Amino acid sequence: MRIAVDAMGGDNAPIEIVKGCIRAAKEFSDITLVLYGKEELIRKELGENLPNIEIVHSDEVILSEDDPVRSIRRKKESSMVKAAQSVKNNENHALFSAGNTGALLTAGTLIIGRIKGVDRPGLLATFPSLANEGAIFHVIDVGANADSKPLNINQYATLATEYAKHVHGKNKPTVGLLNNGTEENKGNEVTKAAYQLLKENEAIHFIGNVEARELLNGVADVVVTDGFTGNAVLKTIEGTALSMVKVLKDAIMNSGLKSKLGGLLLKDSLKDLKDILDYSKHGGAVLFGVKAPVIKTHGSATEEPVYYTIRQIRDMLKSNLLEDLITHFDTQDK
Amino acid sequence: MRIAVDAMGGDNAPIEIVKGCIRAAKEFSDITLVLYGKEELIRKELGENLPNIEIVHSDEVILSEDDPVRSIRRKKESSMVKAAQSVKNNENHALFSAGNTGALLTAGTLIIGRIKGVDRPGLLATFPSLANEGAIFHVIDVGANADSKPLNINQYATLATEYAKHVHGKNKPTVGLLNNGTEENKGNEVTKAAYQLLKENEAIHFIGNVEARELLNGVADVVVTDGFTGNAVLKTIEGTALSMVKVLKDAIMNSGLKSKLGGLLLKDSLKDLKDILDYSKHGGAVLFGVKAPVIKTHGSATEEPVYYTIRQIRDMLKSNLLEDLITHFDTQDK
Repeated sequence: MRIAVDAMGGDNAPIEIVKGCIRAAKEFSDITLVLYGKEELIRKELGENLPNIEIVHSDEVILSEDDPVRSIRRKKESSMVKAAQSVKNNENHALFSAGNTGALLTAGTLIIGRIKGVDRPGLLATFPSLANEGAIFHVIDVGANADSKPLNINQYATLATEYAKHVHGKNKPTVGLLNNGTEENKGNEVTKAAYQLLKENEAIHFIGNVEARELLNGVADVVVTDGFTGNAVLKTIEGTALSMVKVLKDAIMNSGLKSKLGGLLLKDSLKDLKDILDYSKHGGAVLFGVKAPVIKTHGSATEEPVYYTIRQIRDMLKSNLLEDLITHFDTQDK
Repeated sequence: MRIAVDAMGGDNAPIEIVKGCIRAAKEFSDITLVLYGKEELIRKELGENLPNIEIVHSDEVILSEDDPVRSIRRKKESSMVKAAQSVKNNENHALFSAGNTGALLTAGTLIIGRIKGVDRPGLLATFPSLANEGAIFHVIDVGANADSKPLNINQYATLATEYAKHVHGKNKPTVGLLNNGTEENKGNEVTKAAYQLLKENEAIHFIGNVEARELLNGVADVVVTDGFTGNAVLKTIEGTALSMVKVLKDAIMNSGLKSKLGGLLLKDSLKDLKDILDYSKHGGAVLFGVKAPVIKTHGSATEEPVYYTIRQIRDMLKSNLLEDLITHFDTQDK
């Protein structure tokens, strides 16, 4: 299994990307990581030679502020475009980047290409739920498409169901439609129409509408939504959690309690709160609907999230998920 | 100033509604509260007669599970419909309810009626921001319309700007458009078109797109959005905040620290966290775009939120907000 890594993407590239790759390469002898980027910088970070890390030099870098479509079309020598090309050419089997999200989505769709039968790829993110220790749920689309059609949402449901089955070993993952009420007749034009498609979709276990208030309680294993709402919900969870950690810190700082006990309590509680936030442990966001795994991790990712994301890609490759999805949609198409 | 109160709406009606009314009536001698509902129940709670509390008996009640439009059309003798009718007939000047939200929106739109020139009323909620002590921001629409058009979003901006000026004394409230990125070209079809209208709207101080992650940091005084996204964001803030309070509680319960200090620290921190959540202090959600103030407070509201909401209605009535809005849109229409 060969994974193409955009070593120049993200705020901490290439240092933290390389560190995460070293850790993953040492732990998993069945993968080869091919790092695309400035060879000198990468080699300096790499230090020793590892048998399953390769470097492919590329001069250009796509920056976070670059226009997605234009940069993918014009920066042919960039680490991201060259890495994507290698996946298209079957030299490598998956694409990893912590760089410009829009550009990566474009690279996935335009270079690697859509699975036949999938109308529009969607971006899937995984969150911890409070239902029980270690429980998670997936939300798709968290921002690949600003305007999703009912058909797209129905396809997201199938894609994420297969992901939950193949990669997380969920037997019969529940699928909920994010909506402004739980009753069947609730929603806007898109969700009302999506509801009807989801109800008829035999590839999924649809449980009806779910509300944003219940997401973190683990109301469904898979939550499907249009990319605009999904993006807003993802960012609201982040923003609210960060704000609350800040309030808690301030409250304790201002309380004047400086005893060892107070400090201890503070530290543990804040750590637990931050763990809720820390979905990097569950890997990166997956662009679903393209022919190979394309995974985006947070721009601020450090060694550990990079490592977790590569582990996630390895799990995806080992599970034959993509092959099964390609077959599924090919059958549907006929 | 006469306020029509639906005394039968909400989980704690009529007891907590009447309690909140008593407190408000005693504090504000310039308002008269007209309580609609089962006279016997209300009178029992009321105890003493107050000069500025009146009761109008009504037998029927609109339940939280009732279909909004059907219940408003058929339950003519319900407390909510009779209260709304009294506002339409100018017997009272504002409508308060903690009951069925959809029914209240319907009553506002169908019975009291839209302001001439306003296409669709929107629901405005007020949140505390962490920008500084006592800072707040408003979000509109949080759920009156599942499908909002760019025109609607632009009108929400004007309505909320006038609210922030009249009721909260903001001189030049900033208006942000909730979007999936800050650049002008970001968004879905609706937000892209809304951006252009907002840019041209001379009645507001538009500062561009804002992201959901920044809301609680006070990125804008007024945040405008379609009712579907606004509803999802509102419920995500609630759900995330509640989840985090739960995690914190569990963490401290399980830490085995039972000292007085630990308990004290816990209590204060949780209180601060809950205060973020507790937007009931800022009153209820306002249905904007109808001819009189129509205010919905949380279904679980107790005495205090009821009191705050009535104070908010009094502020709205004293400020001549509605008269000014009616004039503004009438001028625009010509």
